[in-house]
Amino acid sequence: MKSHQEANSVHLRNDSDEPSSPGKDVLRVYGMKFCPFTHRLKLVLAAKGVDYEMVNINLKSKPKWYSSKNCDGKIPTLEVNGILITESDVTSEYVDAAYKGKTLTTTDPLKRAQEKMLLVQWGKSTSGYYKYAFGNDENDKIQGSMQIKEGFEKVEKYLKENGGPFICGSEPGLADYVLYPHLERIAAIIPIVISQFERLQEFYDKMQSDPAVQACRHSNELHRAFIHKASNGDVDACDVCVSD
Amino acid sequence: MKSHQEANSVHLRNDSDEPSSPGKDVLRVYGMKFCPFTHRLKLVLAAKGVDYEMVNINLKSKPKWYSSKNCDGKIPTLEVNGILITESDVTSEYVDAAYKGKTLTTTDPLKRAQEKMLLVQWGKSTSGYYKYAFGNDENDKIQGSMQIKEGFEKVEKYLKENGGPFICGSEPGLADYVLYPHLERIAAIIPIVISQFERLQEFYDKMQSDPAVQACRHSNELHRAFIHKASNGDVDACDVCVSD
Repeated sequence: MKSHQEANSVHLRNDSDEPSSPGKDVLRVYGMKFCPFTHRLKLVLAAKGVDYEMVNINLKSKPKWYSSKNCDGKIPTLEVNGILITESDVTSEYVDAAYKGKTLTTTDPLKRAQEKMLLVQWGKSTSGYYKYAFGNDENDKIQGSMQIKEGFEKVEKYLKENGGPFICGSEPGLADYVLYPHLERIAAIIPIVISQFERLQEFYDKMQSDPAVQACRHSNELHRAFIHKASNGDVDACDVCVSD
Repeated sequence: MKSHQEANSVHLRNDSDEPSSPGKDVLRVYGMKFCPFTHRLKLVLAAKGVDYEMVNINLKSKPKWYSSKNCDGKIPTLEVNGILITESDVTSEYVDAAYKGKTLTTTDPLKRAQEKMLLVQWGKSTSGYYKYAFGNDENDKIQGSMQIKEGFEKVEKYLKENGGPFICGSEPGLADYVLYPHLERIAAIIPIVISQFERLQEFYDKMQSDPAVQACRHSNELHRAFIHKASNGDVDACDVCVSD
């Protein structure tokens, strides 16, 4: 099994054998190299300094045994000592609460509530990313961009009001790591939308210097290569960096 | 403005004036008398012993000014000193964290993660309630019941594994108050589905003795009267107990 430092392993497919159980107290993440939800969990693990092993799953050709790890067949799933934790927000909050290191969750109840409300709005606008990246025509791209822009307006307003530069204030926190993955992908394919928002652009730029972001970063070229292959129906698009 | 002890006020309609702002430090809930999401927040407020005033909103004829309280026009919304908090889970967690009294949120990170995963599964099955209650024909009722049953199977398994009688263990906690409102409604219209599950039935029965549940309880007859009127397209169904 590869560690997360060697996470370029091929994604397991429909006919792949189930890997043997992780060793005692070894944390395992089932995910996909280009999945923004897996990316959230990886960022939190990196920011906390928690080591883990990565099992990549091909979502277009899922291994049959994966349904026993996640009843909905979704990623990411976290496994440790036979316990399985699913849902990207639940796994991220669990890692922050269960492992030592810097606390990423905002403790002030009102600020935490406001961050969560922002993330709900952000979650609505991120469907625009998929519409833009995987849509059928120019109309999908226009609609997708407009939907993303609505989310960006809310983030920009938030950053102006809290003073920024991060959602969580002067340092990146859980809300920043939850928000960032879709932003990295949008920056790779439609940077013009980000540059219209001063505070958001500053947030994006500053996140590039964060050690956790750097540890999990894919180049814009690699994101674009994945989207190109995936939108052409290539089942193995997630292995773009292995096969190329 | 009525306090929550006098919450039988008529629901404000499209042409209703905006009520004046709540007084300093007065907590106001915008909600709807039969809304299970508002019910979650009311249960948490009751369990914490937090006083509040209630503004009922007619969701079928929304006051225009309500969009300034909640950009999605949804309920519940919490207002205090000009600050607005939305989303039923965010408002509930906020109240638990911000106000004194018994802590309702489970502190053990793994247990909390498992409760949240259960609530995600529960959230998927509760759409079966709407299909049953407001569906068009017998097929909708059958499909709705089956969907609810899937959620019940997961809750039953959870209660068996954690020993119950509540989701949070020996005392009701946040997860219990989030789960309960749909259960009360299902018990009012299809009790046969609950009685198939021993632990779930025990949970439901024990919740009836909880002071917060008692403070917010509608009778089964009242739930049924609301559903009867609402499914017949009566815009004022939410005022069933005012007009009857």
